[in-house]
Amino acid sequence: MKWKISSCIMVLMLVGGVAWGNDDIMSQAQMTFKPVPAKPPVLKNNPATPQKIELGKMLFFEPRLSSSNLISCNTCHNVGLGGVDIQETSTGHGWQKGPRNAPTVLNSVYNLAQFWDGRAEDLAAQAKGPVQASVEMHNTPERVVETLKSIPGYLPLFTKAFPRDKDPITFDNMAKAIEVFEATLITPDSRFDSYLKGNRKALAAKEREGLKLFMAKGCSVCHNGINIGGAGYFTFGVKENPAANVRPTEDLGRFKVTNTAADKYVFKSPSLRNIELTPPYFHSGKVWKLSDAVKIMGTAQIGISINEDETDKLVAFLLTLNGKQPKVVYPIMPPNSDSTPKPLL
Amino acid sequence: MKWKISSCIMVLMLVGGVAWGNDDIMSQAQMTFKPVPAKPPVLKNNPATPQKIELGKMLFFEPRLSSSNLISCNTCHNVGLGGVDIQETSTGHGWQKGPRNAPTVLNSVYNLAQFWDGRAEDLAAQAKGPVQASVEMHNTPERVVETLKSIPGYLPLFTKAFPRDKDPITFDNMAKAIEVFEATLITPDSRFDSYLKGNRKALAAKEREGLKLFMAKGCSVCHNGINIGGAGYFTFGVKENPAANVRPTEDLGRFKVTNTAADKYVFKSPSLRNIELTPPYFHSGKVWKLSDAVKIMGTAQIGISINEDETDKLVAFLLTLNGKQPKVVYPIMPPNSDSTPKPLL
Repeated sequence: MKWKISSCIMVLMLVGGVAWGNDDIMSQAQMTFKPVPAKPPVLKNNPATPQKIELGKMLFFEPRLSSSNLISCNTCHNVGLGGVDIQETSTGHGWQKGPRNAPTVLNSVYNLAQFWDGRAEDLAAQAKGPVQASVEMHNTPERVVETLKSIPGYLPLFTKAFPRDKDPITFDNMAKAIEVFEATLITPDSRFDSYLKGNRKALAAKEREGLKLFMAKGCSVCHNGINIGGAGYFTFGVKENPAANVRPTEDLGRFKVTNTAADKYVFKSPSLRNIELTPPYFHSGKVWKLSDAVKIMGTAQIGISINEDETDKLVAFLLTLNGKQPKVVYPIMPPNSDSTPKPLL
Repeated sequence: MKWKISSCIMVLMLVGGVAWGNDDIMSQAQMTFKPVPAKPPVLKNNPATPQKIELGKMLFFEPRLSSSNLISCNTCHNVGLGGVDIQETSTGHGWQKGPRNAPTVLNSVYNLAQFWDGRAEDLAAQAKGPVQASVEMHNTPERVVETLKSIPGYLPLFTKAFPRDKDPITFDNMAKAIEVFEATLITPDSRFDSYLKGNRKALAAKEREGLKLFMAKGCSVCHNGINIGGAGYFTFGVKENPAANVRPTEDLGRFKVTNTAADKYVFKSPSLRNIELTPPYFHSGKVWKLSDAVKIMGTAQIGISINEDETDKLVAFLLTLNGKQPKVVYPIMPPNSDSTPKPLL
């Protein structure tokens, strides 16, 4: 489902100012949002097997995918920290700062595309980006394959994960394995999901008030579906330009992907799942307080001032979106051989 | 058990040139080495409880113990990579290079003291070092405590781990919790340990030959006990100074701890457990091939040239020291609050 600005405004008008009862809130919520499923989705063209998931987990934690041997996927997408790094923008090779805040890996399989600007169509395409980015893992596909082939323990693992491939250790297969592992990093069973399944008591009165405001004010126009976000692209600053530190002028967002004027400052709406765990907020990572982020959204996106009481309720609702965090057994990675490339620092 | 150089040379003379049969090799090995126990030792003054171990695990993986929010204990002592970082010397805050190779955390509880120069008497004392080192995690005890106290989820965890303390979130308790977790990171059940327990077939003929050489040449004078090392301090260069890149002249080793002339270039003998997993070797981390390290030990420590065939056998023996790696479920760390200090970069 892709939303564009025009439909966004239309729905805003439709939902504005409606008064609902308690049952109406639940049924409206059930039409707008979906619980995180108990099991990961089946990926097209990349079927999951236990062997592929296990390999993908290993590669997700594998710092030797970076030229320094220091940075793994988990460095910026820490599975124990809500799938993020608690940095404004990520820190990579040589302590360089990346241009944008690291989006959470949790539930990312439910986004319509990956990265803030949606430039990767899926998690496999995404996984190849940071490995090669000079400010992130600073490696090359050739060197990654050379490294993985030099580590004797990887060949049997790739062979089991990709049994039809004659030469299974490839950059593409690395990405595919990481994708199937990342697809398992979902967080079902939040209190809000329990509510969506019909358990009204799962939310306290204040949290239900927050939910009501979330829908009535129009937040759910861009933040809906399974991920309460992640399903469409929207201008950051529909109604009013955010402050220049929050929306740096030089980052034109999706414009860089589509080269279309209307896509200037357009970004994928982020998922609000586990939002308490993932400060700081926005692609710039300049906003640390969730309440501040809520107010900025009000002025920038909806053109309203959200008062303290409303903010309080909206934040209370947002805190019900913490799901059950993934249980990951730390992988034991196979050792170097004498021919494994040395770290570049 | 503390060995000094004089006793080292004496034992070298005692064991030199003895011819042994197969039974003699096993009984000699059983007198010299001990298997890694199945369970961690009881720590004096720091009893382990499940709650304290769980907290310690969380803190071991907690990047917010570093001022940047980027570096945890696990960054340099990666439990999935033999407890090390596969760097010559560790990389820390601001991409600075530390002065020495990161020793493995695995089985470190069995060392007589911690760090290459033994300056920390136990793992709790050790844990405080890197947190404060400007080239490592670059933090202060005050800021660590402020951070941990600002994260609401930590108070109940510290309270459960230290039920007698009125104000349980302290720098000392952080270190104690990390210590009890690290003490669980032991690697029993190596093939060599099976051999030590009487299973002669656990080692192939070539590996037994390597073991025989290891004892006959005198390697086991410094590398014995549970950790096959880690039990004493020895001059690096008893017989001949190693090349200046392998033993940099500016690192005077234990001399900096004791200020005693005899301790110049003295280091704790490292454990050889899981040695295949922990390149590069020596405190300088300048030697990547295990076979090269073996030859350097021959000339520098024993004053002999170890030929290719002997090196081959010694390496074959050393590869039998890989134990069962620890199974660690990745901890889910509690989220920031609005008052949590922001990362310093």
